[in-house]
Amino acid sequence: MTGFPNSADTMITNARILTMDDAFTEIPTGAVAITAGRIAALGPQAAATGVTAATVVDARGGLVMPGLINTHCHAAMTLFRGLADDRPLDGFLKTVWAAEAAHVTPETVNAGAVLGFAEMALGGITHVVDMYFHPGATIAAAAKVGIGLTTGPVFIGFDGIDGLPWPERLAFAEDFVTRHRDTQGVGLMLMPHSAYTLDAAKLREVTEMAERLAIPVHIHAAEAPSEMRLVAEQHGTTPARILNQTGILAPGTLLAHAVHLDDEEIALLAECGVAVSHNPLSNAKLASGTARIKALRAAGVTLSLGTDGASSGNDLDLWKAMRQAAFLQILATGEPDVLPARDIVAMATRGGAAAIGQGGRKGILAPGADADVIVIDLSAPHLTPCYDPYSTLVYAAGREDVRHVFAGGRRIVADRELTAPIGEETARVQAVARALNAHESHDGI
Amino acid sequence: MTGFPNSADTMITNARILTMDDAFTEIPTGAVAITAGRIAALGPQAAATGVTAATVVDARGGLVMPGLINTHCHAAMTLFRGLADDRPLDGFLKTVWAAEAAHVTPETVNAGAVLGFAEMALGGITHVVDMYFHPGATIAAAAKVGIGLTTGPVFIGFDGIDGLPWPERLAFAEDFVTRHRDTQGVGLMLMPHSAYTLDAAKLREVTEMAERLAIPVHIHAAEAPSEMRLVAEQHGTTPARILNQTGILAPGTLLAHAVHLDDEEIALLAECGVAVSHNPLSNAKLASGTARIKALRAAGVTLSLGTDGASSGNDLDLWKAMRQAAFLQILATGEPDVLPARDIVAMATRGGAAAIGQGGRKGILAPGADADVIVIDLSAPHLTPCYDPYSTLVYAAGREDVRHVFAGGRRIVADRELTAPIGEETARVQAVARALNAHESHDGI
Repeated sequence: MTGFPNSADTMITNARILTMDDAFTEIPTGAVAITAGRIAALGPQAAATGVTAATVVDARGGLVMPGLINTHCHAAMTLFRGLADDRPLDGFLKTVWAAEAAHVTPETVNAGAVLGFAEMALGGITHVVDMYFHPGATIAAAAKVGIGLTTGPVFIGFDGIDGLPWPERLAFAEDFVTRHRDTQGVGLMLMPHSAYTLDAAKLREVTEMAERLAIPVHIHAAEAPSEMRLVAEQHGTTPARILNQTGILAPGTLLAHAVHLDDEEIALLAECGVAVSHNPLSNAKLASGTARIKALRAAGVTLSLGTDGASSGNDLDLWKAMRQAAFLQILATGEPDVLPARDIVAMATRGGAAAIGQGGRKGILAPGADADVIVIDLSAPHLTPCYDPYSTLVYAAGREDVRHVFAGGRRIVADRELTAPIGEETARVQAVARALNAHESHDGI
Repeated sequence: MTGFPNSADTMITNARILTMDDAFTEIPTGAVAITAGRIAALGPQAAATGVTAATVVDARGGLVMPGLINTHCHAAMTLFRGLADDRPLDGFLKTVWAAEAAHVTPETVNAGAVLGFAEMALGGITHVVDMYFHPGATIAAAAKVGIGLTTGPVFIGFDGIDGLPWPERLAFAEDFVTRHRDTQGVGLMLMPHSAYTLDAAKLREVTEMAERLAIPVHIHAAEAPSEMRLVAEQHGTTPARILNQTGILAPGTLLAHAVHLDDEEIALLAECGVAVSHNPLSNAKLASGTARIKALRAAGVTLSLGTDGASSGNDLDLWKAMRQAAFLQILATGEPDVLPARDIVAMATRGGAAAIGQGGRKGILAPGADADVIVIDLSAPHLTPCYDPYSTLVYAAGREDVRHVFAGGRRIVADRELTAPIGEETARVQAVARALNAHESHDGI
């Protein structure tokens, strides 16, 4: 804590503050000062008397904490939310890929991503790692809503719905990274899709580019039984092992899912300094399986949480992901204390920051950190009483309790309303849905 | 469908209606007329022109459906919400029972139940089966909030926190049933706690009373591994078998949990005409296990959904229970289509009605049925687009999307606000929480 300045851009007052720092420091009744996109100071309310600010937000005794970080998403897939329910991963992908081929353009990606980012912002997510075609359209969508974004070029072994053959894809990727190195509020990762859609030579080319450009890698790995079979056929080994052999497993790499890992692979992830995005909602819905979070924690692997895309989840709700992370580990191990609530909140905040190389700068309330801050209203009947704030957050709270959201100091949700208008993009998504429904009534997707 | 009358107490207009009848009939743009607590008519909007009503609710294109039915709850335990997290069932019960012994009175039961019923009403639940001490205080709480209630006297083999020795307990039970046979909006069941808190002789006495008074039975059964061990020690058999031997398994009986059942027991439940309240949230949180819903469905057992009490769940959210029911079956079977979304909505509505002997009268929108009706706002980003309404309800919607709630024709939630004031009861619950926190800081619970 540092002393409060005389003035700030924004003051959040009358808050029960969860800093999510190393010691899980709490301030029972405190205030947070935000200036120029960063946290200028935080401390007891009594120490903040007389600070002037252009915007003052009274938390009314609610919780103030770092914004949630969603480390795996395909925001534009809100376009296909619930289009292919009650199917396993391979059938799900078949239906969705057909819909994508017919309807995905930079314009629809932008509209779908705006809708997805709006949903996430309203649910207290201030930063998201997003993997999808036409990432430039996704960057524009994040800027519109005001949410923080980590994204980058997608690599897939066939031409893909963006129509890029491999050499053009490599050139696009390099150019994209160059153009967006300094884009405000945007972090970059190279985003090869998976070991079942890329051969070893192409995975090595991605590794080479990542090293040369000094950009980390985000990739799906060991998600589902069907993937394990495909990778065994194509590579003669497991996803984690082929990713290690091709150099993808390196410090800074973020694996999405990581459900099917043996003990040796878990040790390998720890040794390589790889982080994991745990996606318990989509893992359950698609029958992918239960990730070995207890073993990954024991091995010291950096853990974070993701929602996955809305066409699997089917929403983009990190509160439900927190609760589900607990439930799946408890059921898999028979140990109700296997993943304490406080550690789950840490996965969704500081863990997410560490997973994208922003530890200490995001996912924490501290002077100098990015002003990614959310205010939780504790007044609903379902949050009463509150014996332990972390337990309340994981097992009783939900997106409906998020009252205010600041991302990089910008107020993106005020009193449960988005500050950006999204009517145009919503209409565009509805038009895609109407076209898909009309198509389905004739001859199926 | 019948023709609309000239006037009604309430008209709900511009609705996409899910009737939840046998054929899952939908009305794309319809209206519902409510008079004297019952549904007077429903049909296409065009047929409802000129109907006059004291109250007109414009659903604005949202979904209108039967209210959700929560078939297993201990509403007053909101008093201890999150007090004993991250513990197995036996440790959880030990902590909670100590808190109960110190703080449960008719007054605190009333306050806790008001809070719980308020939460449920806001979340679209119009009827709840509640098992707790001092059921008279619970009846008063339900009347205050306006929610429908099935409750009754609790039977437990030791004196219990209400201080009743067995003979007085039997007398209390009989008197309670006599007094409340005609209480408006209240259904009655006898509520023996479980086979691990009642010996065989006492279970037989409950069966005898149930037969004599013609009142069905609600009981916990086969919830957790610890229960299976205790029942094996005390009765030398399994919960389902001792309940069958003592006559508890009979048509109308409602079993809560029913997680640990072998094939023979599942056949027995079907044969006896017993219904099950599936509680997937508490089953996961307490490491109780995954109920064999697929096998129970195949055997033709009547299935419904419950939240269990807020000290296990930790909230009372049947939307999360619906989603969790799907997730647990999918993971247990590896089959993403094992429990289609439409059938889960049926469990939460018509299934719940069948489980309490109210099939055709509740859990359905039809002329003559009770006017338990909810209006879902479909405008949130997380509900956009909507390809299939049942999939949207199970996998994307939540309590925050419930806009209006009618229970027995009474408007209990209007534009997301309770119509009953609950400030006094909330303050009483907070006072209990303060007392427990103070106690804990001195010498633990």
